[in-house]
Amino acid sequence: MNYQKILQEVYLEAKSLPQIGNVAQTIPQLSKVNPDKFGIHLTTIKGQDFGIGDSNEKFSIQSVSKALTVALAFSFMGEEIWKRVGVEPSGTAFNSLVQLEFEKGIPRNPFINAGALVIADMLVSHLKHPKEDFLAFIRTISGTQEIDFNLKVAQSEKETGYRNAALANFLKSFGNIENDVETVLDFYFHQCSIEMTCKELAHSFYFFANEGKTMDGKQILSKSNVKRLNALMQTCGFYDESGEFTYKVGLPGKSGIGGGIAALFPKHFTIVTWSPRLNEKGNSELGMNALELFTTKTGMSVF
Amino acid sequence: MNYQKILQEVYLEAKSLPQIGNVAQTIPQLSKVNPDKFGIHLTTIKGQDFGIGDSNEKFSIQSVSKALTVALAFSFMGEEIWKRVGVEPSGTAFNSLVQLEFEKGIPRNPFINAGALVIADMLVSHLKHPKEDFLAFIRTISGTQEIDFNLKVAQSEKETGYRNAALANFLKSFGNIENDVETVLDFYFHQCSIEMTCKELAHSFYFFANEGKTMDGKQILSKSNVKRLNALMQTCGFYDESGEFTYKVGLPGKSGIGGGIAALFPKHFTIVTWSPRLNEKGNSELGMNALELFTTKTGMSVF
Amino acid sequence: MNYQKILQEVYLEAKSLPQIGNVAQTIPQLSKVNPDKFGIHLTTIKGQDFGIGDSNEKFSIQSVSKALTVALAFSFMGEEIWKRVGVEPSGTAFNSLVQLEFEKGIPRNPFINAGALVIADMLVSHLKHPKEDFLAFIRTISGTQEIDFNLKVAQSEKETGYRNAALANFLKSFGNIENDVETVLDFYFHQCSIEMTCKELAHSFYFFANEGKTMDGKQILSKSNVKRLNALMQTCGFYDESGEFTYKVGLPGKSGIGGGIAALFPKHFTIVTWSPRLNEKGNSELGMNALELFTTKTGMSVF
Amino acid sequence: MNYQKILQEVYLEAKSLPQIGNVAQTIPQLSKVNPDKFGIHLTTIKGQDFGIGDSNEKFSIQSVSKALTVALAFSFMGEEIWKRVGVEPSGTAFNSLVQLEFEKGIPRNPFINAGALVIADMLVSHLKHPKEDFLAFIRTISGTQEIDFNLKVAQSEKETGYRNAALANFLKSFGNIENDVETVLDFYFHQCSIEMTCKELAHSFYFFANEGKTMDGKQILSKSNVKRLNALMQTCGFYDESGEFTYKVGLPGKSGIGGGIAALFPKHFTIVTWSPRLNEKGNSELGMNALELFTTKTGMSVF
Repeated sequence: MNYQKILQEVYLEAKSLPQIGNVAQTIPQLSKVNPDKFGIHLTTIKGQDFGIGDSNEKFSIQSVSKALTVALAFSFMGEEIWKRVGVEPSGTAFNSLVQLEFEKGIPRNPFINAGALVIADMLVSHLKHPKEDFLAFIRTISGTQEIDFNLKVAQSEKETGYRNAALANFLKSFGNIENDVETVLDFYFHQCSIEMTCKELAHSFYFFANEGKTMDGKQILSKSNVKRLNALMQTCGFYDESGEFTYKVGLPGKSGIGGGIAALFPKHFTIVTWSPRLNEKGNSELGMNALELFTTKTGMSVF
Repeated sequence: MNYQKILQEVYLEAKSLPQIGNVAQTIPQLSKVNPDKFGIHLTTIKGQDFGIGDSNEKFSIQSVSKALTVALAFSFMGEEIWKRVGVEPSGTAFNSLVQLEFEKGIPRNPFINAGALVIADMLVSHLKHPKEDFLAFIRTISGTQEIDFNLKVAQSEKETGYRNAALANFLKSFGNIENDVETVLDFYFHQCSIEMTCKELAHSFYFFANEGKTMDGKQILSKSNVKRLNALMQTCGFYDESGEFTYKVGLPGKSGIGGGIAALFPKHFTIVTWSPRLNEKGNSELGMNALELFTTKTGMSVF
Repeated sequence: MNYQKILQEVYLEAKSLPQIGNVAQTIPQLSKVNPDKFGIHLTTIKGQDFGIGDSNEKFSIQSVSKALTVALAFSFMGEEIWKRVGVEPSGTAFNSLVQLEFEKGIPRNPFINAGALVIADMLVSHLKHPKEDFLAFIRTISGTQEIDFNLKVAQSEKETGYRNAALANFLKSFGNIENDVETVLDFYFHQCSIEMTCKELAHSFYFFANEGKTMDGKQILSKSNVKRLNALMQTCGFYDESGEFTYKVGLPGKSGIGGGIAALFPKHFTIVTWSPRLNEKGNSELGMNALELFTTKTGMSVF
Repeated sequence: MNYQKILQEVYLEAKSLPQIGNVAQTIPQLSKVNPDKFGIHLTTIKGQDFGIGDSNEKFSIQSVSKALTVALAFSFMGEEIWKRVGVEPSGTAFNSLVQLEFEKGIPRNPFINAGALVIADMLVSHLKHPKEDFLAFIRTISGTQEIDFNLKVAQSEKETGYRNAALANFLKSFGNIENDVETVLDFYFHQCSIEMTCKELAHSFYFFANEGKTMDGKQILSKSNVKRLNALMQTCGFYDESGEFTYKVGLPGKSGIGGGIAALFPKHFTIVTWSPRLNEKGNSELGMNALELFTTKTGMSVF
């Protein structure tokens, strides 16, 4: 398949659609991003790279990081992880407290904010130097040292992240946060502030498509456990639009309010899009359209 | 792959697990079923059949029928269908009215009861002889005339189906039911009362795995639209346990409170299990276990 | 106190306020009422009558009837009544199904529709000729035979009352309706269709203000039980605006979507207003304003 | 009326009922209180005092303080206060976040924790030395200098008050807290830690019964505004048991998890009970029983 040609077509067709939505306004530092940025990168299972547009520009991965923190936590805790967080779609917004109250402090899945905070708490408990060790993990799976936190973004989220502080305190009130609320939030805001290019992110997600092995052959998770996380991304990766994404695109993936989407076709490829304009559910409108065009043109989806 | 041998292993291992759960109690006629029935049937894309246990015994397909009604409605209405019902997992029980109130009469998806009632209403509006025509459709896709409603079961559901009557009236109050409430409920109770064997059901689901074509070559839905319904089954097919089923089994499928589960691996096979004991979410406990064993042993799942 | 003069002032001041809101649209027959009708009637504990405006014109009492059905049910069942319906404000709209699902079929109070349907079911079970006997009760407490159902309104509600049918079926599914859903709804739609003038309604509510005794001395409820029902009207009589009404007016009362409000000051008077324009919570805007003016001017409220 | 004799009867009868419920466990410092403490104090509108049992022992007033903070805020803000907090019963538990999410950060009333935090924020904004000035206000209305914060209790609440921290952050995320979350919580925990005897509390509530004037004649609120706050206590003073309390007791009042209840009959008396055992709704079981006995025996209730 001529991926470069297909990406080009997808890129042009997607750009010709009406550009709707706005850059995330909730985090001051992020709201300054140029809304018209747009890049796509595809990495095949054989390691070939295909990029187009702004695919080599860094952006804030935000909630895409949740797929990586849960992979790391799963790698050392295994099924124990599901005692403190579920695997069901939430049926509500990413930052809802309602469901958490009804289910007594057990978040529905690790991709809504409440679940990601519980995962962050696990990492804080388990890692010796949580922030540094997590960054090292990201550098390992991406195969590059050129990845870092954006401290201004982390600070910006800290200063305005009252909803996340509410969630963390609420979880703590149910006993589902072990560490200090402050420490967990600090880790979480750092994890979200990581910046990558589409290409770096596609490389980082490679092990999800490759039965648990990174591009340079490190086994991060077992084949079976990677399937399970892919399944989880399929049902829960796009908040309250997970059904829509699955319906239209048919690939497991994870979005972030920085405008990034990382998706993958097991045994075939990973694909990452970046466009900062978000729809009302908080997902990248252009990215979703591009991925729908891509799977429609290629017929390559898990279904 | 030696499917007969694998089915045998799965059958024995699953039976050796603790048999928990009870036969559905909500429908008097169904509560009389022998709880220890257990059958599995697999049909490959090439048309080979493999069965074990009670796989040739008829059972009430109940909500498994929802995958078939939505396929029929989708075949003549196309994307119009989604104006009256969504594609998102519900995050609540199969018969909840809560979500419906918050979302002003638009059910989250066609597999919860509210959504299935809206689909039933579409069929009643569109088909000349709704019950007869739907039965004819089932006979066509299954390739056998030996399929019928169980009128006692339909009657039994009618007499005790107050929750469904509540849902239908509620939908009508939002203007999302066009026909008489009575007529729609009558159709719905008939559709659920259809009886099939595991084998017949596996044949009926064959077109989902075969890009829209039945075993004898009839194109029911386009390749692209079949992918979309498979995606929908993946995220919503098991009520509030859809994430769990996806996580454990990794195949699109649909369950019913008669104890049946129909699942499929696109381009490879359909597989149907039947065991009437239900877990607390209303899904067949033994069936889910058997399917998890099957995909673990074969490595055959979409992720 | 010169009640006639005060009523006159209240009437003029209230009429000079902006007339907002619309006549109830949900029941076709009611939507034809002249929106500018406005009447007030006050009956003192000594039996003196003071009226102004359209206070001698019949209107549909609708949910005001709920205070009268609960009084009748309470008179023969006593505290048993509270096993099937609560005494707490609902915090939701008058016809919400959400709360009912969370609380497993026990309505929060007898003044939301779900609760009133349970009370209707009690009356259907207990009365020999439910509709006739209830009408006789109303004629007794009002002291006049000139009161009847409006059969066109009852029929109109029946044909469009899908939300109430949903509630009744939902209650039945929880086992909290004993009789046929149809029979209970028929009784309920009749009870709501009763027509009275402000004066007749003020006389009917007299026993609430007079320690349980009607104007001609019949003891309907004990002194203690009447206090309890007054308390219930205070906290729950205006749906999700009960707090607002209590805050502004400070009297127990009950509203209906026909635009009527009956209120009372124990040991002092009953007062009834009628104006068909409803605010967004379903209560008579002008009626509430008039009652607020009345208690402000006279200083006569329970607090 | 011989109040001393009636209090004695009530005291003995209430004590002879089964003593159910436990001391509040959520605040470590409070959990140490002797569960069998029981006192009642009544102050008539003429200033006469009647006490029995442990009525002169200090206890933690906790949420009873919410009636006093709202009175103070109302005295300088007037109706402006209701732009940021409602006057409707909540229909949910005192510390629920659900309602707050649905209503976008506007608490239903000032007596649930979320509403009290908004009131605390108003006081922090308005008072020069918030804690000192509020304490001075309490000393003024109670007529004694012998009232203080319990710093150990305040500290204990601070260290374990994750649910309140969640609420405050959640409110802040909606823009309904002006000051630092920390500062508002610190004020709130101090306000709740105030200790009084039944007698001191009965004196503090005197102005609610006396048309806004304290025992030594200071006008705290206008006659009309005091009526409004009494109305608010009637519908919302006992969390999700406000309807029950109104039904049984028929007086406006406010409870706290320290086991105190302050209630009043306008123009007649204030009455305070203290018994630390709480029912499952968080209200003093024995206190509610005593007040029900009291109003039943005397017939003195607002209805």
